Amino acid sequence: MAGKVKVGILGATGAVGQRFVQQLEGHPWFELYALGASERSAGKGYAGAVRWLLSTPLPENTAAMQVWPCDVTTQNTPFKECRVVFSALDSSVAGPIEEAFAQFGIAVFSNSKNHRYDPDVPILVPEVNVPHLDIVRFQQQQRKYKGGFIVTNPNCSTTGLVVALKPIEDSFGIEEAVVFTMQAVSGAGYPGVASMDILDNVVPFIDGEEDKLEKETRKILGKVEKANGEEKFSPLQVRMSAHTNRVPVLDGHTMCVSLKLKNKATPEQIQTLLQNYSSEAQTLQLPSAPKQAIKVLQEKDRPQPRLDREAGKGYTVSVGRVRGGSSDPSLCSFDIRLVCLVHNTVLGAAGGALINAELAKAKGLL
Amino acid sequence: MAGKVKVGILGATGAVGQRFVQQLEGHPWFELYALGASERSAGKGYAGAVRWLLSTPLPENTAAMQVWPCDVTTQNTPFKECRVVFSALDSSVAGPIEEAFAQFGIAVFSNSKNHRYDPDVPILVPEVNVPHLDIVRFQQQQRKYKGGFIVTNPNCSTTGLVVALKPIEDSFGIEEAVVFTMQAVSGAGYPGVASMDILDNVVPFIDGEEDKLEKETRKILGKVEKANGEEKFSPLQVRMSAHTNRVPVLDGHTMCVSLKLKNKATPEQIQTLLQNYSSEAQTLQLPSAPKQAIKVLQEKDRPQPRLDREAGKGYTVSVGRVRGGSSDPSLCSFDIRLVCLVHNTVLGAAGGALINAELAKAKGLL
Amino acid sequence: MAGKVKVGILGATGAVGQRFVQQLEGHPWFELYALGASERSAGKGYAGAVRWLLSTPLPENTAAMQVWPCDVTTQNTPFKECRVVFSALDSSVAGPIEEAFAQFGIAVFSNSKNHRYDPDVPILVPEVNVPHLDIVRFQQQQRKYKGGFIVTNPNCSTTGLVVALKPIEDSFGIEEAVVFTMQAVSGAGYPGVASMDILDNVVPFIDGEEDKLEKETRKILGKVEKANGEEKFSPLQVRMSAHTNRVPVLDGHTMCVSLKLKNKATPEQIQTLLQNYSSEAQTLQLPSAPKQAIKVLQEKDRPQPRLDREAGKGYTVSVGRVRGGSSDPSLCSFDIRLVCLVHNTVLGAAGGALINAELAKAKGLL
Amino acid sequence: MAGKVKVGILGATGAVGQRFVQQLEGHPWFELYALGASERSAGKGYAGAVRWLLSTPLPENTAAMQVWPCDVTTQNTPFKECRVVFSALDSSVAGPIEEAFAQFGIAVFSNSKNHRYDPDVPILVPEVNVPHLDIVRFQQQQRKYKGGFIVTNPNCSTTGLVVALKPIEDSFGIEEAVVFTMQAVSGAGYPGVASMDILDNVVPFIDGEEDKLEKETRKILGKVEKANGEEKFSPLQVRMSAHTNRVPVLDGHTMCVSLKLKNKATPEQIQTLLQNYSSEAQTLQLPSAPKQAIKVLQEKDRPQPRLDREAGKGYTVSVGRVRGGSSDPSLCSFDIRLVCLVHNTVLGAAGGALINAELAKAKGLL
Repeated sequence: MAGKVKVGILGATGAVGQRFVQQLEGHPWFELYALGASERSAGKGYAGAVRWLLSTPLPENTAAMQVWPCDVTTQNTPFKECRVVFSALDSSVAGPIEEAFAQFGIAVFSNSKNHRYDPDVPILVPEVNVPHLDIVRFQQQQRKYKGGFIVTNPNCSTTGLVVALKPIEDSFGIEEAVVFTMQAVSGAGYPGVASMDILDNVVPFIDGEEDKLEKETRKILGKVEKANGEEKFSPLQVRMSAHTNRVPVLDGHTMCVSLKLKNKATPEQIQTLLQNYSSEAQTLQLPSAPKQAIKVLQEKDRPQPRLDREAGKGYTVSVGRVRGGSSDPSLCSFDIRLVCLVHNTVLGAAGGALINAELAKAKGLL
Repeated sequence: MAGKVKVGILGATGAVGQRFVQQLEGHPWFELYALGASERSAGKGYAGAVRWLLSTPLPENTAAMQVWPCDVTTQNTPFKECRVVFSALDSSVAGPIEEAFAQFGIAVFSNSKNHRYDPDVPILVPEVNVPHLDIVRFQQQQRKYKGGFIVTNPNCSTTGLVVALKPIEDSFGIEEAVVFTMQAVSGAGYPGVASMDILDNVVPFIDGEEDKLEKETRKILGKVEKANGEEKFSPLQVRMSAHTNRVPVLDGHTMCVSLKLKNKATPEQIQTLLQNYSSEAQTLQLPSAPKQAIKVLQEKDRPQPRLDREAGKGYTVSVGRVRGGSSDPSLCSFDIRLVCLVHNTVLGAAGGALINAELAKAKGLL
Repeated sequence: MAGKVKVGILGATGAVGQRFVQQLEGHPWFELYALGASERSAGKGYAGAVRWLLSTPLPENTAAMQVWPCDVTTQNTPFKECRVVFSALDSSVAGPIEEAFAQFGIAVFSNSKNHRYDPDVPILVPEVNVPHLDIVRFQQQQRKYKGGFIVTNPNCSTTGLVVALKPIEDSFGIEEAVVFTMQAVSGAGYPGVASMDILDNVVPFIDGEEDKLEKETRKILGKVEKANGEEKFSPLQVRMSAHTNRVPVLDGHTMCVSLKLKNKATPEQIQTLLQNYSSEAQTLQLPSAPKQAIKVLQEKDRPQPRLDREAGKGYTVSVGRVRGGSSDPSLCSFDIRLVCLVHNTVLGAAGGALINAELAKAKGLL
Repeated sequence: MAGKVKVGILGATGAVGQRFVQQLEGHPWFELYALGASERSAGKGYAGAVRWLLSTPLPENTAAMQVWPCDVTTQNTPFKECRVVFSALDSSVAGPIEEAFAQFGIAVFSNSKNHRYDPDVPILVPEVNVPHLDIVRFQQQQRKYKGGFIVTNPNCSTTGLVVALKPIEDSFGIEEAVVFTMQAVSGAGYPGVASMDILDNVVPFIDGEEDKLEKETRKILGKVEKANGEEKFSPLQVRMSAHTNRVPVLDGHTMCVSLKLKNKATPEQIQTLLQNYSSEAQTLQLPSAPKQAIKVLQEKDRPQPRLDREAGKGYTVSVGRVRGGSSDPSLCSFDIRLVCLVHNTVLGAAGGALINAELAKAKGLL
């Protein structure tokens, strides 16, 4: 383990927390050193505290680790020795806990929504907005954090959307996007969605999700403006209309998108553009970054969550059905329709935060 | 049975055929008199020929009826005595068979797509476009049908959509509609969708469905123009962009819609408009017409297929989540978002055709 | 409402409580007069307190009723005027509340397990063990209840099993039964089973269910012994081995049963016996009793929950696949295999309790 | 590829055929050299002929291979150069095709049922009945096969059952087994089970499956008797009663078993016995053999198909809930209840056949 960065997980027993444990097993740069959960779990061994929901086995060495409170001031807590914590905390408690860890000097990579809209906190997706990471130094200065900082990753559906939209925005400009999602139950955590609500059913509502999808997309695709020693986000002024839905799928959020472009493009151009897209995550060869940020599928009925969510071990966004805005282009104001798919608990949650931390290390922030 | 109109079913053993059998049981105006299916089934009793898929029991008297070929010229066939046939035939065979029945003098109410785009055949939804029925007399004259004619009902998802859109178009005008569907497996017939394709999955593709949804909606919401003894359809020039998807739901198609209106309206105005909508199907008190054409739901997470598909015994369209086009109206070109739900094999198929026949009878065409 | 018996529901907002509301709508003998739920719901209108889960609409007059605490001593509570309460309370609280209502003079028909094994409380299934109802008078005497008493109905899977086994026990005697269940998620209440636990999955464990299935079956199929002014249950000494499982089905418990008989019978004899079975619930023409207590299916792949749970409006037990104990009878000690199906929240819960109350009224106990 | 054994797949485009392709990718001993399918697919590239159903990607080099008819006499067919073929053929055609390949001198490892009950063909499970492989030499002599032979693997549910029962039979003797299955839809191939038959449903019937489960279990757990130059199977005279059911699960057959033993054993003894079980597949370190033939789970609600089917990459049988025959042992003739789980298309089909071939190679038969 010599030389590995010590990392901890806040909220380690929940659905996303388990994904962090899974994704950190055997990580080349990071050593899982501290597990945090609620008072009810603290003091127990992880195996006894967790209801393990993944089909890969609970790593044996993690199973034996002790669970600690999510409090960096607890006596003897291993969190004190961590350089990084990943937060999978519930939003009802995440805010002040994450701040306390950052204040203590720890880099916090959070999957929670609490700090996403802070003016000095980036919502970071390495395949999309690496330059946003720079605001962290301004954040440290503003908040008087010494070594610590807070970086968030977006809502799970936003993650898939912005990866697919980024190359299109860069090359053609997006004027308007109508987005419809079909989201997996794992996105609601555990126990989350009741089986009586989702068997033989869909639920055309996810609380707060449509707002998040619109707001986070604009911030991520926007720019950081620097002036007079101040830094602030300037969101992309893209027009949007979003519909979010829950479907009986375990993992994988599927999104149907209609796009109006500033500069016209054919479906073939968009396909080529997406297929060839390579982000800094690929260039830097971050350990968890997939070879392909985006996989373009040619089959007429793909992507599908069961078949495509594991692409790139869950880190690749799949895009398919790239076509014109309508079967009758003369009666449609949209230029392109497409379907994209993201593994919501890998790239869309724990995996996304993990690549963010890898990026921060590659950039010398850890 | 004295005085009841004798009716037959073409394609009586399939999923939609079974719905016709179910919906015709105890009908006040119609007597089920002839059952037609493929050569393989012809000659058998219905109970032995059908794999009954509905949770209501197979009506006993229908169970004992004989199945005949879908050929009105077969010796002794009871179809010869029918005034009406309902067609649930597969589109690979429906076209010429339906014409032969109309030629024979029988009124054909078809759920198949084959004649939907014929210039003299209406796609009829009684809650929406009753005046289109009139073209039937022109059709008879053109095709030299004596007493017979062909009326179609639309694709199942179109049915739900046009019922929700009609009052809005009439009152405010629709400039553009982006429509996203989550469609039940029963829409694909039986055996239809393989379980391996849909368990823990969604399929973002239904062959030809997006084109149908756009094209049929425009025809149904359009007008019939009469000039120089000719009659023809003038489709509504509404802009559209459609995405159709299959989800693991047994019955009930759910649709998310973003609407740009010609004349602005608030969500409250739209809700009131839809809630109060009453069509000629209601005014004429057609036996299968529901009391409410549209039910507006106030709960934030409705309509849902499992909970709402049986509204009005499957004949009412449910609409919910009527709201503005975006959480930030300044960054959105759409005025209204809503969710609507239709029972795809009742109003969206067999039940729709049945009301069409009831309307034709009320209008003196039978 | 003149002359109708006033009834209340304890635990009216839960999954079984909602079934009570549904089943009591328009009941010829009973008038729903009081709704009770937890302190959190008390004081609200029912429509605002309940998350309605059924596909039939919430009855309008019930929607407007006020929810009261489950306490018969509350000032002005309508429970004081009830002659009967149906209890759908959680077992963590049901015991003393039900006793308090009985003590007050109210007849309690409980779906909860708390009093099922009390030596003076029957587990009653009107199609099976009507004579057990008589112990209620001994109960009243023992407990000094004046007018009040407690009658329970069994666990949902037990209900289906004992209806199928009763005629067989009576005619041939059952030496041993091995029972495997596939139980619907609604049996666990709401929110109950998490979707992440049951999508693409089965769970071969339901806490305490195997014990209940064995113990309750023996009590229900046993006798009441009377001696020296004492009355007590003498359970049937049938040998059993039970396996209970949760499957992704909304409603309807399916059970596979292998039976060793005391006196040999052919599958045909068992089929005829079950088909012709008629219990006192049928003879007395209780309002909710189905025409057929048992429906025997001849199709080789039935009963199935989706297709058969609504038989007799959910009050009929379906039995199918009646066959020998093995394909090689010389290498099997069982005589008969069969599959039976019960609607777990109708006959297996609310509906069962309702028929019990109807029986009590028919027998002059109310 | 030097030195690798050339192998082919018969029925390569079906659900099990795809598993063969997946499991053979990168195999250390075998080189996939020929793909066979129906006339309709022959001549196409594999990628164009198959509807790939697995969540791992179609191996690139296999995608480019040509599909050939399942006929070893076709000119230039690569099957002629194969030493081994794996058969995933439908039972309607498998019988004579497999014989022709064996006659040609090719070792056939078949997942089809056609030859399972031939008196000189073993149903082989390497974790269970390695000695049965020896009958192959007698088969060659009887049938005058030169180098070729036929080995079958059992029905998917049988595979899981016999792995769990073998150590128990060896140590304690099994007098009677009642077996109840909950089987995945992939066991019925593709398209197989219609979604309308299995959503919100279970089907308590699989054609011929109960007979197979009983008959195959007895043959596999039995012995080969040799006398006067003849060899024949002597099935285990275990009493059985089986119930087989289809459930909405993608992969993984779950079985509940009640066992009566010849020599009594406690649940703890059975657990220890199973946990420590190691077969010749493990001793010989066959490439596809898992480290553990059986994994014993201590959690009270396991095994579950979604969580446990991937144990040992799909080659390990999971066993859990090992307990007494009933909660009241005095009223039960069974000694042990347990739940076991097998990945039906890996160990229970393609993977099972693959280990059989590995075993044959290790034993010098290839």
